[in-house]
Amino acid sequence: MNLNNIGEFGLIKRIAEQFSSHSPGLNHGIGDDCAVFADGFVISTDLMIENVHFLHDPSSYHLLGRKALAVNLSDIAAMGASPLFFLLSIAIPKQYALDDIAVILTGIHSMAEEFGIALIGGDTTGSHSDLMISITVIGQAIDQRYITRKGARPGDLVQVSGPLGSSAAGLAVLTADLDPTGCETLITAHLNPIPRIKAGIALSQIDEVHAMIDISDGLTQDLGHILKASETGAELILESIPVHDSLLPVSQKIKVDPFQWILTGGEDYELCWTVAPEAEEIALNAVRKTGAVHAATIGRITTGRNITVRNYGKAVNIAQAGFNHFGVRETPDNN
Amino acid sequence: MNLNNIGEFGLIKRIAEQFSSHSPGLNHGIGDDCAVFADGFVISTDLMIENVHFLHDPSSYHLLGRKALAVNLSDIAAMGASPLFFLLSIAIPKQYALDDIAVILTGIHSMAEEFGIALIGGDTTGSHSDLMISITVIGQAIDQRYITRKGARPGDLVQVSGPLGSSAAGLAVLTADLDPTGCETLITAHLNPIPRIKAGIALSQIDEVHAMIDISDGLTQDLGHILKASETGAELILESIPVHDSLLPVSQKIKVDPFQWILTGGEDYELCWTVAPEAEEIALNAVRKTGAVHAATIGRITTGRNITVRNYGKAVNIAQAGFNHFGVRETPDNN
Repeated sequence: MNLNNIGEFGLIKRIAEQFSSHSPGLNHGIGDDCAVFADGFVISTDLMIENVHFLHDPSSYHLLGRKALAVNLSDIAAMGASPLFFLLSIAIPKQYALDDIAVILTGIHSMAEEFGIALIGGDTTGSHSDLMISITVIGQAIDQRYITRKGARPGDLVQVSGPLGSSAAGLAVLTADLDPTGCETLITAHLNPIPRIKAGIALSQIDEVHAMIDISDGLTQDLGHILKASETGAELILESIPVHDSLLPVSQKIKVDPFQWILTGGEDYELCWTVAPEAEEIALNAVRKTGAVHAATIGRITTGRNITVRNYGKAVNIAQAGFNHFGVRETPDNN
Repeated sequence: MNLNNIGEFGLIKRIAEQFSSHSPGLNHGIGDDCAVFADGFVISTDLMIENVHFLHDPSSYHLLGRKALAVNLSDIAAMGASPLFFLLSIAIPKQYALDDIAVILTGIHSMAEEFGIALIGGDTTGSHSDLMISITVIGQAIDQRYITRKGARPGDLVQVSGPLGSSAAGLAVLTADLDPTGCETLITAHLNPIPRIKAGIALSQIDEVHAMIDISDGLTQDLGHILKASETGAELILESIPVHDSLLPVSQKIKVDPFQWILTGGEDYELCWTVAPEAEEIALNAVRKTGAVHAATIGRITTGRNITVRNYGKAVNIAQAGFNHFGVRETPDNN
């Protein structure tokens, strides 16, 4: 049986079900962006592997280092917590130059400094094959006010912290080798995402915010995790979803359906949360104050179990899956 | 520049020095078996990679899974803490059968159950090359009584929790394809090590125990970490070191110097600690009560900075290094 036929989530589920997930001191176990233990400590781990999550390209190693830590920090943001420490393990192929590794570390270092977090452990080892980076980040929720995927209520509004589809569009520009002029924001969104730590913390202090996730695998897939955990559905208003100005022109140039990038494009690392309607503006203003000026309401939670999408009142048919890590390239449309 | 010329510890040092290692809430940072934060929480992470740490051998996948978790738990034991939770990330080559992965997970599961720890997170991804397992374990010290590598004092006795060199000898039996009859204990020491959690906790409750480490890279190398952190030296009495009965006959059969296995053989996962002489028997008895019946005093801490070894009063010349992860095979003599 080949793993291509299973997919990431099936395997995670199989792993999770086999193990004990209960323990004294554990507040919230496997199956969310972070686990939560003791006094609101949150913890999350991510793997990044050459030729799966990134290509061998020494010119982008600084940004690769930044992104390797950023994607982990985004999981901390998704809980509404503040990052404290991290552990870093690297498997280094023999043929790598130490200078290349040093550039990757410099990138990780710059992201760590931006968020004031300390390196507290790790492991290094040789490898016979691809470069691999494994990072574990620990954070803490203020006054134990963390937000999980579970808790969305019918009638809640669905909000996001910024433009969607930018990373997928940026990757498409890079892959198609287009002239990058005018697409700099999209490319930056793909290569150098900034985790929404401050926005997450701001939302954690608002009682009416009920559920949250970060958009790593695509809006419909990640919102789907909220819906599943909360046993609800959602209706999205396509024209309300914030999109960067350059996305539509690029989609026309590459002849790709822009809705696919917006709804299923992964790696935007914006936050998506649900909030009671009476706190709509409170939540948006709190998030905008942290610099996420394009934060917007994009839909609402329903009593159904599916995601429906409307574009100026008209129903849109969508493919719900994001990309699959068992595919070769992290394009948003390889599922 | 090739990483074969650098070695694991040079690279770890380079990484550690570049990053901030200070943070509010951090009690003990990078450079020990675990970092310590908040109310005595300890955390450690380890990578295991096919063809570096283990060979592709489906017949040993159950034990591989057990060992992958055991080596992490041994770091918790080395702090004198009790394990609570773990995170598990796996990169799976496309050609792997799901059944093989399931067997590895069953092994990890059996070790997790033995120590009552919960799986609280992780990541799975495809890989184009070798199987890779990254585990992070979190534990907690009772009453914040954790033991670091630093604190050994001249005059302290050096003690270990069990026989040394067994794992290296077991690996040699397997590698040389010898008749395993009579060598079962050595082979088991290599394939199925049991972390000394109870012994570590018992030692953490004894005020006179000053420093501790687990023996993963070999006695001289790991004791060397205690000596460096404590700015001391040590004198070892070779004939006092506990050794399994079958080790000497095997060394004669394979024509290997048994001292090399005993002093520099890695992966025994016994504990090594220093204790004030007046508490010699208290410490040994506490450890023996946990089942480590061969615990013994093997030397003492000196004011020097080196390790000297005596065998029945005569000085022995030793090579101090353990094995190097950047080598291909984890034989104890490939440095």
